[in-house]
Amino acid sequence: MSLGLARKYEINADMGEGFGRWKMGPDEELMPLIDAANIACGFHAGDPSIMLKTIRLCKKHGVRAGAHPGLQDLFGFGRRKIEVDTGDMYAMILYQVGSLKAMLDAEGVELSHIKPHGELFFYMQRDAGIMRAVLDACATFKVPVYASQNPEQEAMCNELDIPFQGELYVDIDYSPEGKLLPVSKSQVATPELCSERALEATRTGTGKDINGTQFNFGFGNRPFSICLHSDAPTVLENARAVRKAIDEANRVKFASEMMDTTQVKL
Amino acid sequence: MSLGLARKYEINADMGEGFGRWKMGPDEELMPLIDAANIACGFHAGDPSIMLKTIRLCKKHGVRAGAHPGLQDLFGFGRRKIEVDTGDMYAMILYQVGSLKAMLDAEGVELSHIKPHGELFFYMQRDAGIMRAVLDACATFKVPVYASQNPEQEAMCNELDIPFQGELYVDIDYSPEGKLLPVSKSQVATPELCSERALEATRTGTGKDINGTQFNFGFGNRPFSICLHSDAPTVLENARAVRKAIDEANRVKFASEMMDTTQVKL
Amino acid sequence: MSLGLARKYEINADMGEGFGRWKMGPDEELMPLIDAANIACGFHAGDPSIMLKTIRLCKKHGVRAGAHPGLQDLFGFGRRKIEVDTGDMYAMILYQVGSLKAMLDAEGVELSHIKPHGELFFYMQRDAGIMRAVLDACATFKVPVYASQNPEQEAMCNELDIPFQGELYVDIDYSPEGKLLPVSKSQVATPELCSERALEATRTGTGKDINGTQFNFGFGNRPFSICLHSDAPTVLENARAVRKAIDEANRVKFASEMMDTTQVKL
Amino acid sequence: MSLGLARKYEINADMGEGFGRWKMGPDEELMPLIDAANIACGFHAGDPSIMLKTIRLCKKHGVRAGAHPGLQDLFGFGRRKIEVDTGDMYAMILYQVGSLKAMLDAEGVELSHIKPHGELFFYMQRDAGIMRAVLDACATFKVPVYASQNPEQEAMCNELDIPFQGELYVDIDYSPEGKLLPVSKSQVATPELCSERALEATRTGTGKDINGTQFNFGFGNRPFSICLHSDAPTVLENARAVRKAIDEANRVKFASEMMDTTQVKL
Repeated sequence: MSLGLARKYEINADMGEGFGRWKMGPDEELMPLIDAANIACGFHAGDPSIMLKTIRLCKKHGVRAGAHPGLQDLFGFGRRKIEVDTGDMYAMILYQVGSLKAMLDAEGVELSHIKPHGELFFYMQRDAGIMRAVLDACATFKVPVYASQNPEQEAMCNELDIPFQGELYVDIDYSPEGKLLPVSKSQVATPELCSERALEATRTGTGKDINGTQFNFGFGNRPFSICLHSDAPTVLENARAVRKAIDEANRVKFASEMMDTTQVKL
Repeated sequence: MSLGLARKYEINADMGEGFGRWKMGPDEELMPLIDAANIACGFHAGDPSIMLKTIRLCKKHGVRAGAHPGLQDLFGFGRRKIEVDTGDMYAMILYQVGSLKAMLDAEGVELSHIKPHGELFFYMQRDAGIMRAVLDACATFKVPVYASQNPEQEAMCNELDIPFQGELYVDIDYSPEGKLLPVSKSQVATPELCSERALEATRTGTGKDINGTQFNFGFGNRPFSICLHSDAPTVLENARAVRKAIDEANRVKFASEMMDTTQVKL
Repeated sequence: MSLGLARKYEINADMGEGFGRWKMGPDEELMPLIDAANIACGFHAGDPSIMLKTIRLCKKHGVRAGAHPGLQDLFGFGRRKIEVDTGDMYAMILYQVGSLKAMLDAEGVELSHIKPHGELFFYMQRDAGIMRAVLDACATFKVPVYASQNPEQEAMCNELDIPFQGELYVDIDYSPEGKLLPVSKSQVATPELCSERALEATRTGTGKDINGTQFNFGFGNRPFSICLHSDAPTVLENARAVRKAIDEANRVKFASEMMDTTQVKL
Repeated sequence: MSLGLARKYEINADMGEGFGRWKMGPDEELMPLIDAANIACGFHAGDPSIMLKTIRLCKKHGVRAGAHPGLQDLFGFGRRKIEVDTGDMYAMILYQVGSLKAMLDAEGVELSHIKPHGELFFYMQRDAGIMRAVLDACATFKVPVYASQNPEQEAMCNELDIPFQGELYVDIDYSPEGKLLPVSKSQVATPELCSERALEATRTGTGKDINGTQFNFGFGNRPFSICLHSDAPTVLENARAVRKAIDEANRVKFASEMMDTTQVKL
């Protein structure tokens, strides 16, 4: 089993997405409910002080700390299409993840993973040169990259010796082609809907697209990570509902892993 | 002898201080003439792509690559006074040096040193809390910090186990109190003046303040680094003149060190 | 009576102080409770779209729209000391107010006033050159400048033919020297405290400093504006309490003005 | 004849495209050679102080001062594709042009025209919603908008009562479809080539595309403006060559206009 990959179902969420005096999600309340935090690195959100504060919050709650690089776009929160040269992209990812890595070093915490944010993720999916530039930069850090199932990305990760950590969403929708829809085009996620989707995914490995058609997430028997949007209005309720769902699934499926207390969320 | 400190007289200069399509100094021409580059990290100048390009230029010319963090002030080029909370400052230094460190890791180059830029340097000299915050952050990286002689800073570096690398300037002036004057308040530096000052410093360990009064730089027998402003109009001529002066001084004083080819600039 | 000055007691508040997806105060709920909005212009907060949205909100509620320029400091929300050259300052104020003025022109709304934000206000109070640079820029727009009583500023406004609109605060504290204390050094403002201070000011023209010593605001019989901090946790309660207090004071003191329905807030 | 339109052939160039301490073109030397300056407004280049300095340079040389708004992209100099919501775009144009307008008011200079920069121009050509948003904002200022011939844009300008000022380029290339090619895809412009193209355009109203095929610029008998790139390495030589070419053409074609000394460039 590759180092750093999930050994049971887990929850990840974006954290530290304020800027200066502005706040985004309820980081303090959400942190105890999740397993892995994707910490914004100052390009789409976050600033050095918020990053450091978020790392300390991760330490306090035993949550793994990952980097959440994005496009350089505070105004658009990293959700707008911006043309980036592949050379620039490679440097921008090194810059962002490196800035977080130094803070983790200072705090004695390991970098857990890297998860591209918002439009950067979509950019990678539609532009092979950008995917390569991002993954080339990620390879420097030797940690898993989180992404939805995508054979091209998984193959490129394998080629670069980067662990690929599959993840899925339960609070936004999937298109009939199995692609993630932006927040703005998805239905409102209630805790019930999130829980139902988490249960279905852990039991059967499947989800339903926006038309209600069932599809397979493609992770086979490997444990996956469930991403929750920390800026959803009901994120705390969503997180509690999903927490309950996957804790139960983990008890059934990965009982032996539960003995490893460093991985258990109580 | 502390790891990473200069073993003979050397030249350092700020590098990579453009932004986007804007350029500052003649990096390509200057690089072959210096020993250590202080690479801007994006706060007062520099962007990820320029940083990476500058690292590769260092590699090509065998120049050591250090971090050159500054205040967050592209408009003022890091030369304006900006109030920064000590906690923010600590995080801002980690952020900047970490971003460079990741690029150095990707390129297989070691981080050589850290040198605070412009007003950040002056801020440290007049505010003990800021000096402590900057040095606390620097301690994470275990490399020398470059600074003009200052007993308080040297003592704090010792306390934090940070090597202190003394440096002096030959292209800006010193006040009667031995403090550096800003570029805007110094006389124009000709190559002749730079050379003369470099020779005097290497021979006697002294300089002259703006009134012509001689003073001792306080480095004793330790080899020091001479900083040249890469944005001075005559920087290339200045660098050639100082290069010649210190190469001669090194031949006389540090002949044994000259055998160590990894440190010799030919 | 100078054009644009308050003809009765009024409330002003800072508005449009979000950035991109980040929000600050409860603008929609607060707008119906105030008389004049100070709209952030993108330097310490605000962006073009938020500015335009805020202007439209002013139109909807019949609130006068003024410019709220600040130091260029999104990270510090314009509350940090930043050194600015007087020439730069003059241009920065023209830039900010001009950007808002064009949007007001497009919406058919008049620019009502200019009110410097946060540290920019404090900078003006302690540096005569900066005060002059700011007021020189303001003079271009021929509208009142809002400020706490300050003989120097009032004299300079008179010299430049700028109407001076006196204002005072009821939700932050005054030092024994009659200077405003930053939010961080003031006691928490309850609605009761705000109301009590507003009543005292309208009845007697006086306030109490942080030590409880009474002082005169110095506005004589002229109606003043009361500023409320839109980012205070209880701003809506504060605003309702102060609204009630000054509506009553206006009925007593400025009954004739109340006939002018364009000025009355019902 | 519409107010503000060119009455003879003229040269326009982008000006004030530095940022902080960084410079771009040779503004001081170029200004005496042109008729109309497109002044960057801080989004893709320029800052408030540079804007004001450029306006004063225009005054000194009797050059008309126009606004040169761009995409918000200092890093990419406004030459990268960035997705902008049409509402955001409308507000961003008002913001930028308004900021310049206030400085012009302060200096007693009229706003001459508006010319969208770089990728903003290309964005308008391929997205009707963006073109409409930009022109809606421009309509507030009642001055000509400069653009290459484009029937859709000219029709929309007419509908919005905005004067349309045709312009063409002699230092970058045209595609076989008559579209402008980016600087990076054009051949190097020598003064001879610029002069030859300017002469051909004034004599016959035609140019040659990148394949050498002749095409008509579509301006009929109306005088057009020739844009020169102020960041081209040989811009001063280019400008002198084109100046000579169009001065001669103006003597021949628009002799009566030459009596109007306010329009003559001596």
